[in-house]
Amino acid sequence: MNNDFRILYTQFTDTAQRAADLNFASAVLGWDQEVYMPAKGADARGRQLATLTTEAHKILTSEDYGRLLAALVTAAATSEATEDMLANIRLSTLDYEKNKKLPAAFIEELSLLTSQGFNAWVDARGKNDFSVFAPHLEKMVALKRRQAALYGYTTHPYDALLNEYERGANIAMLEPVFELIRKELPLILKKIKGSEQVSDACFKTNFPKENQWDFSIKVLQQMGFDFEAGRQDYSEHPFTTSFSSSDVRITTRVDEHNFASLLWSSIHEGGHGLYEQGLPESQYGLPLGEAASLGIHESQSRLWENCIGRSKEFWHYFYPILQQHFPDSLGNLPEHEFYKACNRIAPSLIRTEADEVTYHFHVLIRYELEKALIEGSLEVKDLRNAWNAAYTKYLGIAPPDDKTGVLQDVHWSHGMFGYFPTYTLGSFYAVQFFEKAKAEIEAFDEHTKSGTFAPLLDWLRTNIHRHGRKYTSEELCTRVTGGGLDPQLFLNYVNRKYGAIYPGQ
Amino acid sequence: MNNDFRILYTQFTDTAQRAADLNFASAVLGWDQEVYMPAKGADARGRQLATLTTEAHKILTSEDYGRLLAALVTAAATSEATEDMLANIRLSTLDYEKNKKLPAAFIEELSLLTSQGFNAWVDARGKNDFSVFAPHLEKMVALKRRQAALYGYTTHPYDALLNEYERGANIAMLEPVFELIRKELPLILKKIKGSEQVSDACFKTNFPKENQWDFSIKVLQQMGFDFEAGRQDYSEHPFTTSFSSSDVRITTRVDEHNFASLLWSSIHEGGHGLYEQGLPESQYGLPLGEAASLGIHESQSRLWENCIGRSKEFWHYFYPILQQHFPDSLGNLPEHEFYKACNRIAPSLIRTEADEVTYHFHVLIRYELEKALIEGSLEVKDLRNAWNAAYTKYLGIAPPDDKTGVLQDVHWSHGMFGYFPTYTLGSFYAVQFFEKAKAEIEAFDEHTKSGTFAPLLDWLRTNIHRHGRKYTSEELCTRVTGGGLDPQLFLNYVNRKYGAIYPGQ
Repeated sequence: MNNDFRILYTQFTDTAQRAADLNFASAVLGWDQEVYMPAKGADARGRQLATLTTEAHKILTSEDYGRLLAALVTAAATSEATEDMLANIRLSTLDYEKNKKLPAAFIEELSLLTSQGFNAWVDARGKNDFSVFAPHLEKMVALKRRQAALYGYTTHPYDALLNEYERGANIAMLEPVFELIRKELPLILKKIKGSEQVSDACFKTNFPKENQWDFSIKVLQQMGFDFEAGRQDYSEHPFTTSFSSSDVRITTRVDEHNFASLLWSSIHEGGHGLYEQGLPESQYGLPLGEAASLGIHESQSRLWENCIGRSKEFWHYFYPILQQHFPDSLGNLPEHEFYKACNRIAPSLIRTEADEVTYHFHVLIRYELEKALIEGSLEVKDLRNAWNAAYTKYLGIAPPDDKTGVLQDVHWSHGMFGYFPTYTLGSFYAVQFFEKAKAEIEAFDEHTKSGTFAPLLDWLRTNIHRHGRKYTSEELCTRVTGGGLDPQLFLNYVNRKYGAIYPGQ
Repeated sequence: MNNDFRILYTQFTDTAQRAADLNFASAVLGWDQEVYMPAKGADARGRQLATLTTEAHKILTSEDYGRLLAALVTAAATSEATEDMLANIRLSTLDYEKNKKLPAAFIEELSLLTSQGFNAWVDARGKNDFSVFAPHLEKMVALKRRQAALYGYTTHPYDALLNEYERGANIAMLEPVFELIRKELPLILKKIKGSEQVSDACFKTNFPKENQWDFSIKVLQQMGFDFEAGRQDYSEHPFTTSFSSSDVRITTRVDEHNFASLLWSSIHEGGHGLYEQGLPESQYGLPLGEAASLGIHESQSRLWENCIGRSKEFWHYFYPILQQHFPDSLGNLPEHEFYKACNRIAPSLIRTEADEVTYHFHVLIRYELEKALIEGSLEVKDLRNAWNAAYTKYLGIAPPDDKTGVLQDVHWSHGMFGYFPTYTLGSFYAVQFFEKAKAEIEAFDEHTKSGTFAPLLDWLRTNIHRHGRKYTSEELCTRVTGGGLDPQLFLNYVNRKYGAIYPGQ
């Protein structure tokens, strides 16, 4: 019987890993599409991605695979299956049941529309005109509503989509979080507005692109990113993707007259990249080889970007190095002024360049809008106006054009509805993990001050990365910190940190 | 009935193009592997490529696909199928019958060994030690012998492998060609040796890498390479690959102290790239959307590299531009001296950097050695010695190490046995096409002298590119030039051109 289990388990890993090979191939094609592909390659790339996705889906929804999983569940009951094996079987069975809900034709349609939608979004951005993208977005919203119906849900179609990125999350869990943002963050912002303002002009002088690149590589190396198992490239919209835990690609962008653009992108994606490199290689293509959720993924990027990358201790080590890279721009600026500039709080239009406080208004806006699109209370033709109204309401500024407004994010063109909330969840988890790591790692601040990040990376590897997708976000958070999501901890962190930078009048 | 045919033909293109999607995805992964992939990504990439190849092979060897092709052949007889449709059906049926001969397990084994073999070859080159690569090569030779047996052959196993790259070619056709090389080329070389020697020292001063890159882009643009449907990158071993005729990737390499390395690689691969961009897009994934053969492919690269790129007329236009790129190195060198340097004939060790005369000894050597490996008259353990002996025999020089000797080419690591002869066939076809184009295009030399290559490219598109794989090399050569392969024309061309540069004592 035990022997039977082993044979079945090998058949299972063979099948799952074959599908993973196809999905990782899709990831290579997707990476190339955004990093190096020439414009005219788009059509063929679209159909190639559609075929890869369809073939992987075929494998993972085949009756054979379903029977194999069912047989495994039975065989596991009387075998010496390890806890990890059981987790892989359990999660793959959940995935199978979910995948079975989407017909192959739907998958192909979604993949094709994603590719066309992405190209239309690029085109629309170039033309700074939402109406170029709108017809594609309309189709995408209709398709995502169908997807929600196919998955099924009890209270709200948005829950079904959310679950794709954050297993176990739903509107009922999110609403209190966003309610806190709606209520508490304006109070913090008000206090900041009443203080002496911080300037970030030092980021906006002249920063030769090559030196920016070199500095980012230096930071990533110091963080522990393994460049033999990954690389950094440029893309329009920074992202992280991986083709195994030994081949992790991050991207950044560069603006000669705004060093902040590359700096925070590189550290942020570097945090994602470290998580991918830390996933167990032995679990290639299996649930335990995958990230826990997008929220947990974002907790890693936000922890490195904000809790580490915007800390006094980090710049104690890196600022002299940075000054050597840009003696003309930063040679005469004191370290504490630069630290404050890194932490300037001010309402702005672009999410990816927002500070760690106002950032959550950007997420809130997207959450409210996409929820409305999915439930049908907002139509795509009204989206631009709704977007601009929301920015006026929450951030007090309206976008002057579509490029800095409703067209700024790639997500909806990719059909990613339900993704944005994970950014806020991730930021909140990040603070919880960070506080715990600080409490558990001896001389934490001293390590950061000397540019030594191995203790933190080890802690993250041990407590978070190595588990793969074994636990839900909430289970993992509870294992690591002793409790689930607690937005109050984020508020405390923000009050403490920014209370010092913006002490009020 | 006619209606039946249309339905069947659509089913056929859907299936063939789905397999093509997977194969093009393999090409993207292969391109990335040699251009950007970090070292540790190799293992996962190997299994991903194996899976893609296996899945494509499954589609193209399925019983369903076989029945579909058989039904198409029947339906086509009484329908209004176009000539192109009939050609696609005929060639796909031939492919199907050939593919059926290789079991899926064999394909997977070959793909895995290819990937491992490539990595071992890179490793061995780094260590400059053939013995690191030898165990992999032994396995590869055994596998290729099995492949030849699976394909079947009448006189020699090598014929079966050759046919993969050059449909219709065999040893019986190649032997007279190589016999001519063995007999006639030494006479030409002897005459050259008796003349005043040409120096290529001008290539070996200091050429800033960026300026080399810029010049190569300028040349490629002028040749007509469409950078919106392709790109150039760096790789260890220059190559061309494509993911559709609208996404063609060429690579080159650069040596600051040897401008010849980048120059000829870029023009050569540019010629391949123009062919790929000229294949009919409407035939995506079908035989008529594919190159005729490797020999014809090489005829395009060699035509641009040698007949155009090493011509007086080409440099009449480009030399002043080149001088502007490198005023320090070339500012004082007269044009005719540079032209002669481009055409220096001298025995050397590296095939890809050889001149257009001695080049064919390099091919001859590989042809003799790989034929011997496949027939079993030479063992891998004796290959290094045999290689060095052959270089001494034909070129009068022995490699000082493995890197410049038996480890210089990637081909065998990729399992490409039977590929090398296409280089010589291609060079010979190139001269035949070139002479015909010159005869048919008005003011040909004047166009070249003014950097105008559109007439030549149009001629190549019309006479060669647009046909895809419709004709065999020999059929195509006969259609275009009025006769099949005629090595004597190559000898005449070489005698004429080099008789002027090396007039004898």
